Amino acid sequence: MMTKQDQPKAVTAAMLVVGDEILSGRTKDKNIGTVADFCADLSIDLCEARIVADEIDEIVAAINALRAKYDYVFTSGGIGPTHDDITADAVAKAFGVELNVDQRAIDAMQARFVDYEMTEGRLRMARIPEGGELIDNPVSGAPGIQIENVFVMAGVPKILQAMLESIAPTLKTGVPQYSVFVNSQVGEGVLSAPLAALQSSYQTVKIGSYPQLGSKDYMTQIVMRSSDEKILEQVRHEAQAIVDDLFEKAKKGQGPTI
Amino acid sequence: MMTKQDQPKAVTAAMLVVGDEILSGRTKDKNIGTVADFCADLSIDLCEARIVADEIDEIVAAINALRAKYDYVFTSGGIGPTHDDITADAVAKAFGVELNVDQRAIDAMQARFVDYEMTEGRLRMARIPEGGELIDNPVSGAPGIQIENVFVMAGVPKILQAMLESIAPTLKTGVPQYSVFVNSQVGEGVLSAPLAALQSSYQTVKIGSYPQLGSKDYMTQIVMRSSDEKILEQVRHEAQAIVDDLFEKAKKGQGPTI
Repeated sequence: MMTKQDQPKAVTAAMLVVGDEILSGRTKDKNIGTVADFCADLSIDLCEARIVADEIDEIVAAINALRAKYDYVFTSGGIGPTHDDITADAVAKAFGVELNVDQRAIDAMQARFVDYEMTEGRLRMARIPEGGELIDNPVSGAPGIQIENVFVMAGVPKILQAMLESIAPTLKTGVPQYSVFVNSQVGEGVLSAPLAALQSSYQTVKIGSYPQLGSKDYMTQIVMRSSDEKILEQVRHEAQAIVDDLFEKAKKGQGPTI
Repeated sequence: MMTKQDQPKAVTAAMLVVGDEILSGRTKDKNIGTVADFCADLSIDLCEARIVADEIDEIVAAINALRAKYDYVFTSGGIGPTHDDITADAVAKAFGVELNVDQRAIDAMQARFVDYEMTEGRLRMARIPEGGELIDNPVSGAPGIQIENVFVMAGVPKILQAMLESIAPTLKTGVPQYSVFVNSQVGEGVLSAPLAALQSSYQTVKIGSYPQLGSKDYMTQIVMRSSDEKILEQVRHEAQAIVDDLFEKAKKGQGPTI
């Protein structure tokens, strides 16, 4: 028998994007989607994401709120060499620790490029909050920072991706979640009642319904997620039967399609 | 002379996306970018964005945190007809008001389509928190909700866009922000010191620096934002001079390019 101790536990995470350029509309964020996929691959539950401006107190407040609530916090943005890169400062402030130039970071940066002069800006990138560990950056050398459960990474998508690959082996993974879907030729207006009943019958399965406006192939996608593949298959089967039945009725003129 | 009272005030906003499908990675969010552009057009300062799961207490907490802090809160997602659409419930709970089927909402839905039967799901979409006003939905009829400073809108991008157009004329607009940029052939490593000095000289201009990894045309884009076009032009001029000078030196072998 499986005891409670043996059961795999959920691992939770939040994402924090630091960046005026996202909030001003100038840049469209892709990093939340990247981290969402990354978490899904590791069976880590991404529970929340936030985007805040380049304002130190806002970043500090978000980091402290999120690190207290979730197993992991992943941040992107604000760790470059210029004056507007203040995420490391905010992390040091959030943890109440010093932020000093770290020889390990200088070594990592100089190992990446020949004749890499440590300009004022690069020394800025070499500042690591006390107690922090480096996150490897094979793209441009300047490291990310791990401090306790917070992973501070770059905003440039290619560098973020590389840093995520660096940290992946060090993370706890959660309970694998499986996902199946049924595409429906009838819309949510008629689906809602039978789907609500289906959800009530299967409390351990999360059933989501997504209208597909403008799709020629189907009107609604029903997505079912669970850690139990057997039950999931059963629910998929029942959802398919609901959809088929409603569509048959609609074709015979015995019921609405939307 | 312009007195303090005459000065236009900043108008602030936050965006809240409700949706498991974004956090699971299944759907990539586009609505934050849409709302960011919308706010920029109206000179509204989008200060923060959050994505939360389809969990009522999480939605309530986010709505209450954001509506207390910003002039406007825009939400997307969770107002469809199915059991997983719980944003209206969360809004009612956040405001401590009743949530009942509203005849105005039924009228709006039935005005949009002929023979529109009010199924259980559609009645769900017609529930409006007490004190709420309808937001017009010319796409699919089912209205959004405005209650005090919170605007509850659809997650389907096309419907969200239409709802934003519906509310735009009702919103206060803020101080117009102008933005200019300079593309730099030298990288942030050498730019950081002179840019920091430039920022110190112009406190009312926000200077951001964005590395363009993989671009053939330039290495860094310097973006400057301000409500004062004259000062902005001056700063742009100085930034261009910094960039030109560093690039000239680099070409002559007298300085680094990155």
